[in-house]
Amino acid sequence: MQEIKGGGVCTPEGFQAAALSADIKGKADGKLDFAVLLSDEECETAALFTTNRVKAAPVLYSSELAARGGKFFGAVVNSGNANACTGAEGLTACREITAALEKEFSLRDASLLAASTGVIGAPLPLEKLLGKVAEFPANLDDENGTRFAEAIMTTDTVSKECAVLLNSGEGVYVLGGAAKGVGMLDPTLATMLVFITTDACVTKSSLQEALKKAASRTFNAITVDGDMSTNDSVFLFANSMSGIKPEISQFEEALAYLCKKLAIMLVKDGEGAKKLAAIKVCGAKNTDEAKLCAKKIANSPLVKTMFAGEDPNWGRLLAAAGASGAEFEPDRVSVRFNELLYVSGGKLIDPALEGEVGAIMKAPEFSIEINLNAGDAEFTSYTCDLTKEYIAINADYRS
Amino acid sequence: MQEIKGGGVCTPEGFQAAALSADIKGKADGKLDFAVLLSDEECETAALFTTNRVKAAPVLYSSELAARGGKFFGAVVNSGNANACTGAEGLTACREITAALEKEFSLRDASLLAASTGVIGAPLPLEKLLGKVAEFPANLDDENGTRFAEAIMTTDTVSKECAVLLNSGEGVYVLGGAAKGVGMLDPTLATMLVFITTDACVTKSSLQEALKKAASRTFNAITVDGDMSTNDSVFLFANSMSGIKPEISQFEEALAYLCKKLAIMLVKDGEGAKKLAAIKVCGAKNTDEAKLCAKKIANSPLVKTMFAGEDPNWGRLLAAAGASGAEFEPDRVSVRFNELLYVSGGKLIDPALEGEVGAIMKAPEFSIEINLNAGDAEFTSYTCDLTKEYIAINADYRS
Repeated sequence: MQEIKGGGVCTPEGFQAAALSADIKGKADGKLDFAVLLSDEECETAALFTTNRVKAAPVLYSSELAARGGKFFGAVVNSGNANACTGAEGLTACREITAALEKEFSLRDASLLAASTGVIGAPLPLEKLLGKVAEFPANLDDENGTRFAEAIMTTDTVSKECAVLLNSGEGVYVLGGAAKGVGMLDPTLATMLVFITTDACVTKSSLQEALKKAASRTFNAITVDGDMSTNDSVFLFANSMSGIKPEISQFEEALAYLCKKLAIMLVKDGEGAKKLAAIKVCGAKNTDEAKLCAKKIANSPLVKTMFAGEDPNWGRLLAAAGASGAEFEPDRVSVRFNELLYVSGGKLIDPALEGEVGAIMKAPEFSIEINLNAGDAEFTSYTCDLTKEYIAINADYRS
Repeated sequence: MQEIKGGGVCTPEGFQAAALSADIKGKADGKLDFAVLLSDEECETAALFTTNRVKAAPVLYSSELAARGGKFFGAVVNSGNANACTGAEGLTACREITAALEKEFSLRDASLLAASTGVIGAPLPLEKLLGKVAEFPANLDDENGTRFAEAIMTTDTVSKECAVLLNSGEGVYVLGGAAKGVGMLDPTLATMLVFITTDACVTKSSLQEALKKAASRTFNAITVDGDMSTNDSVFLFANSMSGIKPEISQFEEALAYLCKKLAIMLVKDGEGAKKLAAIKVCGAKNTDEAKLCAKKIANSPLVKTMFAGEDPNWGRLLAAAGASGAEFEPDRVSVRFNELLYVSGGKLIDPALEGEVGAIMKAPEFSIEINLNAGDAEFTSYTCDLTKEYIAINADYRS
């Protein structure tokens, strides 16, 4: 597996994108906010959506279409408005936009999926969007991966893209991806949207299985604030245009690699975040408990402010673990910061280590391992610090 | 029921307190940090403790003693150190301190309960505390309720006390209370400690039942950050010295009133908080779901930053409700800010109402009602806003 520098959703063969400014927020700032991702050939498609009971119109629309099992040419996406809590009008708006684009590109009905991200509850400015549809064909280009990644940004400060090239033995194939926001089953309301493309030939069932597996330890392992969006969606489009049928194990490994890369990018760009922390819980009774515990720690405001303060206040880790519901004996727990053992048998090993642990926390990235010594299962969650900038972003402006 | 101005834990007949500075944090700032609450007569006692799997030494000690079912004279408490994650030494320290005080006051063994609050994982400075025990008798006074309430403060900015007087028909009796920190089943690591006293005659079983009932809609309904402490404890001491045996319904009502008063004081003084919001979820299928939903909303960082920003970004309320696991149809939900209906059928009624809702949120206290229209159950959770000051308190200083 080889990473392709500067690669993204348009790197696999036959994928193009177009991105425009429809001025959805009415700020006239020229921000790209309306985009389409298109494959030359129809794609086997896998998708995952938010489990929030309140689902945005594009989630209702796309999940219904995806469940029917057909092929798709790609997706249309907008930022600046989530089209969530917008009732029947929202669903109609979503249908009209995809239909207008399908007509514009002479695609068959219901061959495009849809996604939105932005403020919840405001009506989508449908006329503005429809007015831009005619401009898409001229804008379509296989060099537009970065423009597509930019168009889906909201409070993101950098666009997130990645692509990898693999050799199946028979020849090469490529996976590419673009993402924004953070989190899937446990995400911020900033919404996570992920678009992954590949020119490999993979059956729909293998595709969906591979995506589910990859997401469980990547997009479902990250958190910024434990809030769950109404709009989270992950799409995986496979157009077969490389002609390569990879070993499924190789494809799954490459997909997991790509998903992890994108997931880590999301956490690092978490709202106000300055630190990336990998929280590994090991020695748990089973994977569910390991995950429960890692997520509880990763979402604890007191743990996250401790990261911001670079303060090895390890009691907060144990308190969060104890509140998680995972079974363990407090006096058997050990804690490492990077490789350094700091807590053993539930107690501080030596207060003199505090300086060394503090130095580890000063780095922009570090890992913490909490060994519950209650079994063999482990789970790693990726989180960021909770800073004053997070408050500023979410209190001072409407996202 | 009549509130007694300036009343607290020493207001009921026969209760005295002493509070000293043992300089537990080594700051030599004279802060009161070591206190005892004593009744002239032994008390029937009810208690509730944190459900965190990681329990502080005083929680292990007191819960075991309380479970034995005997009577108690009161409790010894310190701030500045949680005596949590301190292993066997921590438990020994807790035993030595209570034993030294029992000896000093010529009480029988194991007749005092214990509580601690402060940093987790640091050894308790036992010698400092033992060195202060001899000073307690001279300090004991029934005017010391406020000193006691001050001694238990950590990041609290004001001491919290309350007392009520009731007439049973046969005569009057009094309930008094002091509290610090926030939360019980869903509390901040700042730890909630609550001490309630009464001179009424109530049986132990009625006492425990009344406390459990009162806590469920008061201390268990509040949240600051959704973190759960290793030290939370609520004690209720009844010394019978008024000679009054109240109707249990009257006593329960008075206890619930007192608990709610103290609980609201705790949220209002939440770390960095400037707003108190009552989140009422009604129309839920059952009380568990109402509570789940109210708590999820009350703990959502995005909801809490929206309060800080005074921004009626109501989509965050629905997204949090949708993530809670409570069953409801999104398009049947209505939302009121104070009395004002803002969302109906899952949609905004009129964007023009935004100014009016914003004005409601500018007040230091307001209520939000989310009607799920899925049943008859309701639950109200009390929460505060999430501000930059919360981050400063928890990131910049070790609490």
